[in-house]
Amino acid sequence: MGPGLLGASLVMAIREKGLAENIVIWARSKETAEKAGRKLAADQVETNLAESVYGSDLVIICTPVETMSSILSSTIKHLTDECLVTDVGSVKSVICEKAQDLFKLPGISFIGSHPMAGSEKSGMNNASASLFTNRPVIVTPESNCDQNHLRRLKEFWGVLGMKVYQLSSAEHDKVIAELSHLPHLVSSVLSFTISSKAKLASQLSGQGLKDTIRISGGDPSLWTGIFSENKAQVLTCLKKFEQSIEKIKHLIAEDDGQGLEEFLKKGSALQKFLN
Amino acid sequence: MGPGLLGASLVMAIREKGLAENIVIWARSKETAEKAGRKLAADQVETNLAESVYGSDLVIICTPVETMSSILSSTIKHLTDECLVTDVGSVKSVICEKAQDLFKLPGISFIGSHPMAGSEKSGMNNASASLFTNRPVIVTPESNCDQNHLRRLKEFWGVLGMKVYQLSSAEHDKVIAELSHLPHLVSSVLSFTISSKAKLASQLSGQGLKDTIRISGGDPSLWTGIFSENKAQVLTCLKKFEQSIEKIKHLIAEDDGQGLEEFLKKGSALQKFLN
Repeated sequence: MGPGLLGASLVMAIREKGLAENIVIWARSKETAEKAGRKLAADQVETNLAESVYGSDLVIICTPVETMSSILSSTIKHLTDECLVTDVGSVKSVICEKAQDLFKLPGISFIGSHPMAGSEKSGMNNASASLFTNRPVIVTPESNCDQNHLRRLKEFWGVLGMKVYQLSSAEHDKVIAELSHLPHLVSSVLSFTISSKAKLASQLSGQGLKDTIRISGGDPSLWTGIFSENKAQVLTCLKKFEQSIEKIKHLIAEDDGQGLEEFLKKGSALQKFLN
Repeated sequence: MGPGLLGASLVMAIREKGLAENIVIWARSKETAEKAGRKLAADQVETNLAESVYGSDLVIICTPVETMSSILSSTIKHLTDECLVTDVGSVKSVICEKAQDLFKLPGISFIGSHPMAGSEKSGMNNASASLFTNRPVIVTPESNCDQNHLRRLKEFWGVLGMKVYQLSSAEHDKVIAELSHLPHLVSSVLSFTISSKAKLASQLSGQGLKDTIRISGGDPSLWTGIFSENKAQVLTCLKKFEQSIEKIKHLIAEDDGQGLEEFLKKGSALQKFLN
């Protein structure tokens, strides 16, 4: 459901691996549905929600995070027995709580997923079957979830080449606020700060600036949804980041060269560790 | 002078383009000099400052910014007539003011340069003849500078494949604080903030985090020197960045989705413009 970057890439990857007998794409608008029909090798393209999930074993919601809860509400009554529903959203608590309320019947279940395979290039046109290869995915089952469904879900992401991790939805939102939402926010704030110097920047900046602001090119509407849904955790991380700013500002202002070098060493060590 | 990443890359590029009859490397320590002698195709390697510049037409100081003024002081009396001295430092006011004091005789001159061709990988081992290709370089002549020397200097960087820009040293330090020093600082502060989560980050982070913190991997000692020499401008930029943080924090906290999306759009537009 939702053939954007992730949804369209999923269609391509599932097709390539031969994981589905039948792939159905749901899109909200007729234009997107038609485009998906032309561009992607699906068996069926639908704008009707009920038709799109009817008879499906696996439903993957790939729409912006702020739309997921209402899609889940509208979808649930049309699901077939044994259907597993998941999503690809960057925030998990909201959708997982909603699912806990909705999924009361045995047989059908919802388990959240967050494949960490985005790009600053959004939309169907940038989709790729290899988007998921060697990337991490976090699944966020509730303790009372169907263990067979959980096994199937982990297997599914694994076959797409992803490294599967498991966290509670609350842990996920905390960790990802720090490792993904904060970097995006910082990158966006940097871009915003120098946005009035676009011409100079295009002439005089090196690769360093380009890399640091790469993710700020992400879809503003998508990220508005993500920051809003994970508001509390994002604000907590931002506070921590501001404390670090205060620290380095003090070191520079007080000419504390040794302290400044120690500060920079910690950051440098993390960068080396991750590469 | 100083066969680090930039100095060693210059030796390689000058050799490749056949720009010098004779290349002399100066290194402070015997070990570095010996290593440079083994690794780089120089005609002569020296630890003696006077010997290293004797008879040179062009001297390029490639040592850390905080060492440049004293090297310039020790070097000037050994320069031959018609010698042009330049450097590759990221901060220009300090060295250019020092040079204004020192270079009183006609015939010899100093004109600052800042080739924007660094990397988070420092040192001779990461040097490359192509480091300068298609990168910008800023030259910062004083108004009373020798016009022949200025022409030669621009030609030199141009032949190495660089796009040559000209600014006053004060303008340079202001612009580069915003387009290079601030991004580096922000990247370092982000790395510092999440440095206690190294293990989690190595498992769960996507390419976004890696790109955003890439430049924080730069040499901590080099960047301590740069932030210190350009302290006033760096602190001014940091203040501007903090104001942007306040703005986005307010938008998130107040659930101002429309304002947040506008904010993110400005950053996103800059990123697209630079790519």
